Amino acid sequence: MTSDAAWEPVRRVRTHEQVLAQIQQKILDGTLSAGERLPSERELVNMLGVSRTSVREALRALEAMGIVESRTGSGQDAGSVITATSTPAMTNLLRLHIALARISLSDLVDTRVELERSAARGAASVRTDDDLRHLVELLDQMRSTDSDPYQFNTLDTEFHVSIARISGNALAVDLMQALRGAVEHEMAETFAQLEDWRAAADGLVDEHEAIYRAIEKGSGELAANLVADHITTFYRDRIAGR
Amino acid sequence: MTSDAAWEPVRRVRTHEQVLAQIQQKILDGTLSAGERLPSERELVNMLGVSRTSVREALRALEAMGIVESRTGSGQDAGSVITATSTPAMTNLLRLHIALARISLSDLVDTRVELERSAARGAASVRTDDDLRHLVELLDQMRSTDSDPYQFNTLDTEFHVSIARISGNALAVDLMQALRGAVEHEMAETFAQLEDWRAAADGLVDEHEAIYRAIEKGSGELAANLVADHITTFYRDRIAGR
Repeated sequence: MTSDAAWEPVRRVRTHEQVLAQIQQKILDGTLSAGERLPSERELVNMLGVSRTSVREALRALEAMGIVESRTGSGQDAGSVITATSTPAMTNLLRLHIALARISLSDLVDTRVELERSAARGAASVRTDDDLRHLVELLDQMRSTDSDPYQFNTLDTEFHVSIARISGNALAVDLMQALRGAVEHEMAETFAQLEDWRAAADGLVDEHEAIYRAIEKGSGELAANLVADHITTFYRDRIAGR
Repeated sequence: MTSDAAWEPVRRVRTHEQVLAQIQQKILDGTLSAGERLPSERELVNMLGVSRTSVREALRALEAMGIVESRTGSGQDAGSVITATSTPAMTNLLRLHIALARISLSDLVDTRVELERSAARGAASVRTDDDLRHLVELLDQMRSTDSDPYQFNTLDTEFHVSIARISGNALAVDLMQALRGAVEHEMAETFAQLEDWRAAADGLVDEHEAIYRAIEKGSGELAANLVADHITTFYRDRIAGR
């Protein structure tokens, strides 16, 4: 007899998990890429030799992960398509993860600060005239949004994400969107509850404008320090102090 | 008649999506937390007034997202439990996202560098004797692992993640694990293909040791610069140059 140590309990891999794994592997190795249509449910049933239920469970899981979009209807337009924008799903999962792992807002703010410092530094060294024009437009819109703190928050997010986009790091853009998205609701609520949110908003626009000017001048370190102060001050005064 | 502009196409929300949304909302508002058991499939069917298929599709989606673990068997131990470790799922989704969004390895390396700089700086200012002992143990193990580049890679990951853990930022720990996990296979493969991987590994351990000494001395900026050099040099010499 061999010793007990040579044996391991068998983990039953359920059929839908095998379907899921095959599709994921084809995405990872590049066989399936964004925008492509998956075979139909019926075709998958035939090719994989599994039940329709297993195929459907795997597809539902991929949809929930934001990897596949299901298009209803019939003919050419119907079926499951590999999504080109998996960021919303990553945002959703990060939000759930933060809730489950009880990650503190302070850890989240610290992480955001590092990503934003790097984005501001990068943007200052490569910004084009078009980039600067886009940031100015956002500043103008932030100044003139007088009715809705939620709309202001959206513009605020877009300002920060644009800086990451200018810096050219696609992963930083996605992570920044996901980190903001994960606490977007709380941020907007906090903001809406301020006695005079418009005065607070004006203060924030002034800070955004200073960051803009540092980026315009190509002063990377200054831009990085200003964006770090801007984020930590807002967190300390508006969120942590509540 | 009202104008056409007042009408919006109705997006059909499928039943399993509504089940999924309810469970996610309960996690986000804290009603359900890590380690808790979900009601059984049958109970969910009764409480929500939906079909067993819809409940099962929602549960499969939550499992694939790593939010819920299904425990097989019967009685007390069976059923779906809210997971306490959603990091592997986030790693998996990040890996798929990087493949789908065609995020470059260079963007990934740049983002890692920022997170690691911050972790090294933080670790240098708060490290305890126990923390330092743990890092020394990892260094010893890295020196003595002579048979397996994959094992070396695991220790290497653990060294970096430990520094983030010492710094105290739980989100940085998770993101670092996810970012490394997303390219783990490629990294280990690259390493295994080196003509003399053990010599390369010794060079890396020397660099790790220098980072360790800076953290031990409490020299945050030095530790941050050393870890940044360590990562970018490896990327430039071993990965980008291939």
